[in-house]
Amino acid sequence: MAIREPEIITGKEEMRKWSRTMRAEGKTIGLVPTMGYLHQGHISLIKEARNHADLIVVSIYVNPGQFSPNEDLSTYPSDFSGDIHKLMSVPGGVDVVFHPHNLYDYGKIEVEVEDERERREKGQVVSCLEERRLGHETWVRVENLEKGLCGKSRPIFFRGVATVVAKLFNIVEPDVAVFGKKDYQQWRIIRRMVRDLDFGVKVIGADLVREDDGLAMSSRNVHLSPEERNKALAVYRSLSQAKSAAGNGQLNCRVLIDMVVQAINEAGGKTDYAEIVDQENLEAVEEINSPVVFCVAAWFGKF
Amino acid sequence: MAIREPEIITGKEEMRKWSRTMRAEGKTIGLVPTMGYLHQGHISLIKEARNHADLIVVSIYVNPGQFSPNEDLSTYPSDFSGDIHKLMSVPGGVDVVFHPHNLYDYGKIEVEVEDERERREKGQVVSCLEERRLGHETWVRVENLEKGLCGKSRPIFFRGVATVVAKLFNIVEPDVAVFGKKDYQQWRIIRRMVRDLDFGVKVIGADLVREDDGLAMSSRNVHLSPEERNKALAVYRSLSQAKSAAGNGQLNCRVLIDMVVQAINEAGGKTDYAEIVDQENLEAVEEINSPVVFCVAAWFGKF
Repeated sequence: MAIREPEIITGKEEMRKWSRTMRAEGKTIGLVPTMGYLHQGHISLIKEARNHADLIVVSIYVNPGQFSPNEDLSTYPSDFSGDIHKLMSVPGGVDVVFHPHNLYDYGKIEVEVEDERERREKGQVVSCLEERRLGHETWVRVENLEKGLCGKSRPIFFRGVATVVAKLFNIVEPDVAVFGKKDYQQWRIIRRMVRDLDFGVKVIGADLVREDDGLAMSSRNVHLSPEERNKALAVYRSLSQAKSAAGNGQLNCRVLIDMVVQAINEAGGKTDYAEIVDQENLEAVEEINSPVVFCVAAWFGKF
Repeated sequence: MAIREPEIITGKEEMRKWSRTMRAEGKTIGLVPTMGYLHQGHISLIKEARNHADLIVVSIYVNPGQFSPNEDLSTYPSDFSGDIHKLMSVPGGVDVVFHPHNLYDYGKIEVEVEDERERREKGQVVSCLEERRLGHETWVRVENLEKGLCGKSRPIFFRGVATVVAKLFNIVEPDVAVFGKKDYQQWRIIRRMVRDLDFGVKVIGADLVREDDGLAMSSRNVHLSPEERNKALAVYRSLSQAKSAAGNGQLNCRVLIDMVVQAINEAGGKTDYAEIVDQENLEAVEEINSPVVFCVAAWFGKF
């Protein structure tokens, strides 16, 4: 297995230039957007991307645009050198890690002065963009899909996700991008955004990857104590029970949801939501008679 | 002067394919988005685009996404064959006219059925997307700049403009796009969107073009009777007076605005708004001591 170090690019213009150069050479580019602190779930996304593109760009960027002030932006785990190390072990390797410092820093603002007698452009450094209302103010909204599930308790979350993904698509200009279905609503939102805004990017969903004991892999799992982690297995266990109950003919969603919520409660967790929704429009269904997905978010540990 | 007919492309995929082929050959592409019924103002945008790109795409599409139900979508003037004729007379010509039928028709929806035993994708024709909430629902909002001026009386207008321009950028993938400063707020919004979403497109503003008598060229001028048209000259006349008053030291915006509003009233027009705003953030200023622009919208004729 060849081990090679990915090229690390931090600048937007440099990133786009790399992509355009590669595309001009006929290469296709696959993008895997991440917030770092990589685990096997991310690696599976990268392997999936390898199936669809010649070159792989992994972005590592904790996007402040999707965190509310009361959320865990400051404690989001990170380990950049560990991430690079993990990426070097991916079969086929990763070509570029795009690791921008701040995607919302637009630095110098061009101020155009209009005057018929003297028309000129002058550059001007604006020390604080917000003072003159020159800060970031453009947001992509996927207006229905963003509302339910995670969007209920995190009202600006998907606005931030859709916007940063649009930015990454415009900077990296990939042919293909891979997202995990662990974040099912996010995956549906990105697909819808790509369709509605006609991005020339193919979006691929990759399956959730679980630890051996059944816990869905997630960077935030690091916050769980061994005991909390053990309790959190109630999510997978109860979901599996609900799935097999549905397979045996229990199609009433209320009954299935109660099974899961009760199991999470009994394990000492707090359910943010537990809903059975249509796979495409994410609307809650009462009885299963079309493709659905059971979406659960729950807190274990400090909450 | 070479006279050549532009290639007419109606499909999104065909359009993108053309652009990518040309770019792979090292050509740069300039886009001039229009709603058709072209006049010399549009032609000046195309000439400007010619200064910045090897190949020119003019899009002709009346975007329903920016019209409210009570607005003039159904009466917006159109003359496609006349437009093509005009484009043939542009020095250097136009390479492609992108003329889609409906940019919001996503046709067949891919429905993915999730099942661990039987994972497959199946295609399904959805006759009415709205029924299953599968219609267009992604919108780009430039949240501050969209609010004032035209945005006050047309609350969804700039949401629609920003969204369709994002779509056109993603379909045509131009290097450069030219917008008229006649629609000053639109121009600022598009520039901000491009900066904030990191589109790899350079946005160029082209000056307003006036008829010999001073009326700003606009496709909607066709709705004016000769008498109404004559009255509408009050806009340019009073703006010129305000400009020269400012040049002579009258920097109080209230005084300058009153001059213009009064002149429009006296000519029998109805002012939608008349504001002197900062050129960059479009906020109203009370006294002129930085680069400003005087923005006016007024109705003449039926209102």
